[in-house]
Amino acid sequence: MRVADAAEHARAVVLLSGGLDSATTLALAIERGHSAFALTIRYGQRHAIEIERAARIARALRAREHRVVSVDLGAIGGSALTDRSIAVPRATPGDRIGSAIPSTYVPARNTVFLAVALAWAETLDASDLFLGANAVDYSGYPDCRPAFLEAFERLAEHGTRQGVEGGRFRVHAPLLELSKAEIVREALRLGVDVGSTVSCYDPGPSGQACRECDACVLRARGFREAGVADPALLTG
Amino acid sequence: MRVADAAEHARAVVLLSGGLDSATTLALAIERGHSAFALTIRYGQRHAIEIERAARIARALRAREHRVVSVDLGAIGGSALTDRSIAVPRATPGDRIGSAIPSTYVPARNTVFLAVALAWAETLDASDLFLGANAVDYSGYPDCRPAFLEAFERLAEHGTRQGVEGGRFRVHAPLLELSKAEIVREALRLGVDVGSTVSCYDPGPSGQACRECDACVLRARGFREAGVADPALLTG
Repeated sequence: MRVADAAEHARAVVLLSGGLDSATTLALAIERGHSAFALTIRYGQRHAIEIERAARIARALRAREHRVVSVDLGAIGGSALTDRSIAVPRATPGDRIGSAIPSTYVPARNTVFLAVALAWAETLDASDLFLGANAVDYSGYPDCRPAFLEAFERLAEHGTRQGVEGGRFRVHAPLLELSKAEIVREALRLGVDVGSTVSCYDPGPSGQACRECDACVLRARGFREAGVADPALLTG
Repeated sequence: MRVADAAEHARAVVLLSGGLDSATTLALAIERGHSAFALTIRYGQRHAIEIERAARIARALRAREHRVVSVDLGAIGGSALTDRSIAVPRATPGDRIGSAIPSTYVPARNTVFLAVALAWAETLDASDLFLGANAVDYSGYPDCRPAFLEAFERLAEHGTRQGVEGGRFRVHAPLLELSKAEIVREALRLGVDVGSTVSCYDPGPSGQACRECDACVLRARGFREAGVADPALLTG
């Protein structure tokens, strides 16, 4: 069991939003043998319910630790997700989701999130970062692309104590090439409490999905294609 | 005056800590014709006085705007500057400052700061970022090196709306190769209110320098070599 023993000690920082994708990513990091440190960024998003769900998911999946770090991206604005003066758009049946950068894009969000994850990784001596970025259903966000993730690995090697001493950083985005239906199947296979995850950009106070935003539409399509009912819609 | 007119419209986000280096960097960005948007990150540092001084400096230098964005790096710890359980070290006369990464290093700080600056730059449609990093007196911080800054430019091109559309980002660190004495001379030449800047890692409530930490020792050496008295020590 030497391999498993060694793998247990490979610490990873996993970005956990409370959504389906990041919960599945956390479960995958743990399945791969990492000691997972879940990190939730409170970034002035409208839906604080995500934070509560993230904590629940981290506990259920037995993350080694869960931390919440506040980053006041609301002070910058520029996105429907952080700026209350911009409405969250509703998808209409004819929309081609993912064809342009939408107003829900938070400027440089993954850069900021990975930067904070990197800071924590430095203090933990962890060299693996996980995030739930998805290139198929990325809704046009530039910072969910493979070239971006590779550029971040280079940056981490130049900008950290470990990197300067010759260490390597890996940014893992295990869902990058999966469809939403494949993510749903992975989540169910891994025992993720899917009903606790919140994907909606504009949920109700108890996490009820609006069923109309891009994120809800993509999620519904994923469950439909996977041939299962979304437990979040039953309990929400 | 066409060149000056065009340059006036080149927006830049300038990281402004309230210290001597970043104040000088802001003055240089404005001298170069940029419309400067000063950004102060409140990151759980012990000395909130920096924030107040940053606002004063931004006003005096006529930055176009000044924003303060909170990033709770204290939740991560790992540095004497964000974690109260770690003492700020005092330099002793025989110390070779800069020979190792010190406990005042904040993990991935410049990565986090530049990431937030990039987020604001995206909303402003600015493609220039300025920071006061200094490679000569960098006290062993890995994220003050040229290779790091270049890696960030690559990341910005992959991780932003402008970058994906073919835009370029420049990270300017105009003090990178200057000695502290040269920075002092630049600050005085540019009319920076040097007496308002706070460099100390552990200042008193009104910004009084401790005169003992690495930052104070480096600053004192700079003024001594520049042959001028430090007004902050007279007023502090």
